[in-house]
Amino acid sequence: MRPQVDAGRYPIKRVVGEEVLVEADVFADGHDQLACELLWKYESEKDWCRVPMEFRLNDHWAASFTVEKLGRYQYKVRGWVDPFVTWRRDLVKRREAGQDLAVDFLIGAARVDNNILKDEGRSVEERYQAAMTAEVPPPAPQAVVESEPVLEVVVDPLKARFSSWYEMFPRSARGDGRHATFRDVAALLPYVQEMGFDVLYFPPIHPIGTTARKGKNNAVSARPGDVGSPWAIGAAEGGHKAVLPGLGTLEDFRQLVDEGKRRGIDIALDIAFQCSPDHPYVTEHPEWFRARPDGTVQYAENPPKKYQDIYPFDFETPAWQSLWQELKSVFEFWVEQGVTIFRVDNPHTKSFVFWEWCIRELKQAHPELILLSEAFTRPRVMHKLAKVGFTQSYTYFTWRNTKEELTEYFMELTQTPSREYFRPNVWPNTPDILHQTLQHGGRPAFIVRLVLAATLAANYGIYGPAFELTEHLPREPGSEEYLDSEKYEIKRWELGRPDSLRELIARLNRVRHDNPALQRDWSLKFHPIDNPQLLVYSKREQDNAILVAVNLDFAQPQSGFVELDLQSLDIAPHETFEVHDLLSGGRYTWAGSRNYVELNPHQLPAHVFKVVRR
Amino acid sequence: MRPQVDAGRYPIKRVVGEEVLVEADVFADGHDQLACELLWKYESEKDWCRVPMEFRLNDHWAASFTVEKLGRYQYKVRGWVDPFVTWRRDLVKRREAGQDLAVDFLIGAARVDNNILKDEGRSVEERYQAAMTAEVPPPAPQAVVESEPVLEVVVDPLKARFSSWYEMFPRSARGDGRHATFRDVAALLPYVQEMGFDVLYFPPIHPIGTTARKGKNNAVSARPGDVGSPWAIGAAEGGHKAVLPGLGTLEDFRQLVDEGKRRGIDIALDIAFQCSPDHPYVTEHPEWFRARPDGTVQYAENPPKKYQDIYPFDFETPAWQSLWQELKSVFEFWVEQGVTIFRVDNPHTKSFVFWEWCIRELKQAHPELILLSEAFTRPRVMHKLAKVGFTQSYTYFTWRNTKEELTEYFMELTQTPSREYFRPNVWPNTPDILHQTLQHGGRPAFIVRLVLAATLAANYGIYGPAFELTEHLPREPGSEEYLDSEKYEIKRWELGRPDSLRELIARLNRVRHDNPALQRDWSLKFHPIDNPQLLVYSKREQDNAILVAVNLDFAQPQSGFVELDLQSLDIAPHETFEVHDLLSGGRYTWAGSRNYVELNPHQLPAHVFKVVRR
Repeated sequence: MRPQVDAGRYPIKRVVGEEVLVEADVFADGHDQLACELLWKYESEKDWCRVPMEFRLNDHWAASFTVEKLGRYQYKVRGWVDPFVTWRRDLVKRREAGQDLAVDFLIGAARVDNNILKDEGRSVEERYQAAMTAEVPPPAPQAVVESEPVLEVVVDPLKARFSSWYEMFPRSARGDGRHATFRDVAALLPYVQEMGFDVLYFPPIHPIGTTARKGKNNAVSARPGDVGSPWAIGAAEGGHKAVLPGLGTLEDFRQLVDEGKRRGIDIALDIAFQCSPDHPYVTEHPEWFRARPDGTVQYAENPPKKYQDIYPFDFETPAWQSLWQELKSVFEFWVEQGVTIFRVDNPHTKSFVFWEWCIRELKQAHPELILLSEAFTRPRVMHKLAKVGFTQSYTYFTWRNTKEELTEYFMELTQTPSREYFRPNVWPNTPDILHQTLQHGGRPAFIVRLVLAATLAANYGIYGPAFELTEHLPREPGSEEYLDSEKYEIKRWELGRPDSLRELIARLNRVRHDNPALQRDWSLKFHPIDNPQLLVYSKREQDNAILVAVNLDFAQPQSGFVELDLQSLDIAPHETFEVHDLLSGGRYTWAGSRNYVELNPHQLPAHVFKVVRR
Repeated sequence: MRPQVDAGRYPIKRVVGEEVLVEADVFADGHDQLACELLWKYESEKDWCRVPMEFRLNDHWAASFTVEKLGRYQYKVRGWVDPFVTWRRDLVKRREAGQDLAVDFLIGAARVDNNILKDEGRSVEERYQAAMTAEVPPPAPQAVVESEPVLEVVVDPLKARFSSWYEMFPRSARGDGRHATFRDVAALLPYVQEMGFDVLYFPPIHPIGTTARKGKNNAVSARPGDVGSPWAIGAAEGGHKAVLPGLGTLEDFRQLVDEGKRRGIDIALDIAFQCSPDHPYVTEHPEWFRARPDGTVQYAENPPKKYQDIYPFDFETPAWQSLWQELKSVFEFWVEQGVTIFRVDNPHTKSFVFWEWCIRELKQAHPELILLSEAFTRPRVMHKLAKVGFTQSYTYFTWRNTKEELTEYFMELTQTPSREYFRPNVWPNTPDILHQTLQHGGRPAFIVRLVLAATLAANYGIYGPAFELTEHLPREPGSEEYLDSEKYEIKRWELGRPDSLRELIARLNRVRHDNPALQRDWSLKFHPIDNPQLLVYSKREQDNAILVAVNLDFAQPQSGFVELDLQSLDIAPHETFEVHDLLSGGRYTWAGSRNYVELNPHQLPAHVFKVVRR
């Protein structure tokens, strides 16, 4: 039975309004006719809805249902051998062969309560018609086999599947190097909105510890005036439920959330479950931390590295119940302030069991929540986090750059059963990751990575303004850290710079908004092209088809002949059709599967074509 | 965890002496060191054997065990986070970084009982060495996670994996058209042995009903002297536990079984659970059959076709318990006569639940039994029968004839997870199936289909003497039935005919016997060749490698260049090696991956090369 995750141990995922196509192998010994049906219901409902399943081929049956509400749905399949339908099927064959049906009518009469069928005084024709029109009796309860266990679907809001994220450090929102407030961020909302983003995500906004505070460029000791890393959470002013005074008040934050909502932008918060040594928890709840034999609190480590500015929680402490409740209440606190989207920092270093419990509880009360798992770790661990409940997941996209890497990885993300629970959210950059490609590829590299992210994945994000201003200097050669990283200082940003990519970003997000094909991932199809530097792929939703061609060579123009899979675009073999480049405005007339593509990185290294049938 | 079938619902299969390689994804949150082990035991043993699992890559661990005894083994995996090993791993890194280890030694001392480690008076070096040499303490019971459910392996005798079957009708064993006896069959044992077969399989040997007996070529009415179909089981002389008097006595049969064993040949019987109207069961146990409303017994049907000479058992009768016990006792009766291999006729028209119970019970008492499922039906049903217990399964081989069909089908049989439970037994012909290929392809077709069967599959069989005497006439054009089918009459066979394929068959079976590569299926590898009429594949077991090239064009010589996957043959990229044709005796020196192959169907349409490294 499909879809299911780990034999039903975890739910699959959908968003409101989507279809769940359920497929099952249903068969029995012998040649009798089977019937089967799909049963589904909203979790809290009592009665199951029933849909007859349709026979496809080779014992394969299918039916679907649509999930209309946030929350959880359940589904299962029932099948049975149907003796009456079997008998009627055979009766037709016997009659066509001109056989005597007298005994057969009596056999049928034993299977359905029908007076005409029973009545030997009636004509063969009358009795045959009675058989053909008789209502099929319900199956005997002991004949019905039901699939086990009952399977589940978590239904999320639309933004779980289709969202455009913009990450920024609120404290740099002024752009002039002085510490900004939520009001300064509010003033930037039009900038974010004009670029077309619908999620504005902040690193932690809480008081920052001073003990062992890191300086600029991650210097071991801060200098006077250094603002510290937002991930060193907690100080005298409070911890995970407080706001850094320099950013304003909780009321300011709530106002910002409201203003964002009016512009279609959800404010997303970073939940990083760790403490600075100054966090109130450290003194109020020493039982939530591990003690070292010398009486000090165990700090974070990656031996031999020591992060003495960070204390991790001990998820296995004997006091785990009060700890877990408190951590859950952190989410609940921010939900009360109007936040529904969270990015969770390093969830893989916390207990899987905690996440499964915590997310289940949170979503039971607030099924609209979206949680993005920020785990850049081994595949099994990233998948496990998605299974235990994270709505979206960061991916390896940043490190997939060649044609082969991109093709293989996105085939895995979109065409394997993991898509039932693992929803990718892809980022060309983050405050932690400035990939070599962006360091050395120049402006074409930024454009290419942006186009790939925005068109390969329905969920994507950028860390700005570093991205649109094409920040590309690493702290040192070979490093993926930004030079003068915003993690440790307030940045100056000249948002109006003429070379900013903001216009292109706005255009791309508009294309995403206008074209349903780009709002889902599962229709992704790669098309062969005879140039290893060119990548061509398409997505389609109903009559909306988008075809993207990208030049992965940031230095030289490249050209080639693409061999389109016309079927995936719903184009007939020799049909003439148009492709409209939604980035450049260019229009081309193509015919058949073989077509010429040429891309100059110094003009635009990508086409985003809308495929238009005549 | 792999291997497993349907989340552990069914066992996997192995033969005595084989290895079970168990693989598992084992991981936890965080960065702690894990340990895991494979536990396995013979079903009836109490204690588990333990093997540490080895880490491979990406949370993937593996270990194996060898199954030495017939019967069932069980296996599972245990894993745990190992705090002491984690601590020791980090201690090494800390020491290399020159850090102060005083507190670390105390942390370690809390994890292992070690006086030197605890002792602050000892030198760093002493305490470090104590840490390195300390025995790893066993995991805390609550820290251990165990896989569920316990998985099982059915261990069969070697012939379950590697066997060569010869099917013949005992009553034609004289070859002169007169009804033969088991003694005549005994006289043919040397003929069968010389050809190299180790299973001699008979259609049913029981008394044959006379009511509604079929005549020659399946004529509706028999004429005087017609011997009837052996599958119309049961007459006044007895049923499934009796021997047709014309064949001799039960004692004669037992002697034949013994003589076969002395020659390394197992006699296999056909178990067809159906009755002629004259079967003693019909009058003694009417409750085992379905009654029609007119008081007659329900005969077999495939509407509108009626098979009034055959009564099927009603597996769902209220008296199912006595019926199932009796049917099981049929197997037990023949096991008592020395039979250990059974071919089961049309198991898909009987209850899956019956088979699962019956085979489980039989193999519990007689784990040496081999049951071949004769189901030519939809894939899911054939697989289900293999899952519920059949040792071997007939396949679609007969209908897979082109290069593409053969490649795809044998990749499925040998390279997908179904190989854990579905063991193919492939037949170029059976008394029911004379494929068009053999009807029209002439002698080269017989040779090609024989070579394919004998080298693609470790289990194969032929229906003889029809095969070696290249019988190729169908009852009518388009039919797969033999003209003058042996199912309904005694045949004359001229076994010594000079054009018989018996010598070639003997050579092929000798090659199979001498080359371990051909005694297993899983190493199968197809090699690309630039001619669609040529098929090239190899198998390897340790240092034994066999490479087969077949010309699928039965009329014309074909040639081409093969692109060998040298790694699968354990040959270095530019190594010179020899290929010895074990059929023709020819020897060729090859070098590198690209080599020339030419095959003339009128000489020998196949090479069976032994690959010999210099």
